[in-house]
Amino acid sequence: MRRIMLRVSYDGTNYCGWQKQPNGITVEETLNRAVSELTGEDIRVIGASRTDAGVHALGNVAVFDTESPIPADKFSFALNQRLPKDIAVQESCEVGPDFHPRHRDCIKTYEYRIYNGAHRNPLLSRYTFHFHHALDVRLMDKAAQYLKGEHDFASFCSAGAQVMSTVRTIYDADVFRLDGREDGTIVIRLRGNGFLYNMVRIIAGTLIQAGQGEFSPKHMQEIIDARDRGAAGHTAPPQGLTLVGIEYTETEEKEETGE
Amino acid sequence: MRRIMLRVSYDGTNYCGWQKQPNGITVEETLNRAVSELTGEDIRVIGASRTDAGVHALGNVAVFDTESPIPADKFSFALNQRLPKDIAVQESCEVGPDFHPRHRDCIKTYEYRIYNGAHRNPLLSRYTFHFHHALDVRLMDKAAQYLKGEHDFASFCSAGAQVMSTVRTIYDADVFRLDGREDGTIVIRLRGNGFLYNMVRIIAGTLIQAGQGEFSPKHMQEIIDARDRGAAGHTAPPQGLTLVGIEYTETEEKEETGE
Repeated sequence: MRRIMLRVSYDGTNYCGWQKQPNGITVEETLNRAVSELTGEDIRVIGASRTDAGVHALGNVAVFDTESPIPADKFSFALNQRLPKDIAVQESCEVGPDFHPRHRDCIKTYEYRIYNGAHRNPLLSRYTFHFHHALDVRLMDKAAQYLKGEHDFASFCSAGAQVMSTVRTIYDADVFRLDGREDGTIVIRLRGNGFLYNMVRIIAGTLIQAGQGEFSPKHMQEIIDARDRGAAGHTAPPQGLTLVGIEYTETEEKEETGE
Repeated sequence: MRRIMLRVSYDGTNYCGWQKQPNGITVEETLNRAVSELTGEDIRVIGASRTDAGVHALGNVAVFDTESPIPADKFSFALNQRLPKDIAVQESCEVGPDFHPRHRDCIKTYEYRIYNGAHRNPLLSRYTFHFHHALDVRLMDKAAQYLKGEHDFASFCSAGAQVMSTVRTIYDADVFRLDGREDGTIVIRLRGNGFLYNMVRIIAGTLIQAGQGEFSPKHMQEIIDARDRGAAGHTAPPQGLTLVGIEYTETEEKEETGE
């Protein structure tokens, strides 16, 4: 029995999120079907991030155990032939039998993209939130700096989330215009050790308010200190959000053995 | 009666190209319907570029004549409320009564995008051609330089095109990797006074062969000199192609009058 890790990218537009659920098709069950058909085993993958409906990923992570003799690095090619066009495995490798994508220390990078033009842009609308009012990116970036460090992020967590603790650490928080163009896409990039339910989308909604000058950047500290969802801004819509990647801090690839 | 010019962007994925035709819906007829509904007149727009099925545009140009009292710059907002999400007017303005988008001197910019990763990228696949073999962008750019200037581009014109002359001028031809990343998207950007049927896609297919080292860059001159479609490479698929914009060399906006 080997444990295989997959790096999975998907356009979330047509999926009801990652996690298997009764209404509508999910990324997880689409992967389960492809892996099960390929191996002839009844396989359920375990995902690292249970992204919401409409959220995209460049590098979500999933693992599964198999008796299949397929070389670990060949699963990507074999699975991509069985997966729909809007899901693709970018990399496959063997990991240790105790590797669990959610129970390991890791750093996740998310990007929230806002298209800030006067009219919607059909070539960007699947992957950005169109917001046509003027946004001051400098103010947004200043406000984002208050998120850095270890904080109780309860103000940025949607009700209904079942978590032991709402304390997380954000290592990097940057807001910038792509290509440096004044009318370009605005990117909010966050890198942290974990994110609460809807946390990035609530941060995006709050930074949009900061970018409109509705409050000064230093008010972010008060929003954090409130530990109250009502203190933060709206939850920005899902299509602007992409899970860019997950870095595991311990060596994740199993050492090659001489067998 | 006024003549209104529209700059139109669209995701071509779900359209049978620009021009009205019996099988399947086109961008032109979708615009005709929106403009006719808005003005209450029976309007047929005249487009600058009759892009093929699956080809995208950031800034195609269309004009129409109307008796409507709607201010010229407000057509964009009013039309975008009636157009489907994958078509949007970026700008509307009044032009002179003799302005014809195809009979005027203009410069068109096209981009052909190639995703050069090992596996397909679902977040790029609508707008790029996935080509997984190694490509030497330096060779592609060298080959592209031979296209610059005034040439008979008959080698890069699909059969069935009805044109008086296959001579066109290309002002700029550049091939580069987006973001400078080794595994990134490759962009072929062409700027010229006109392009023959399938010309950019045939150039892209030919430059892909150059990038694989199938011939040396200087062989491009022989391909041009052959004036024979058989001398050039394959026609690259439509989803990689975007009409970026059209510049008109004469003043296109009608002067404001004191009426």
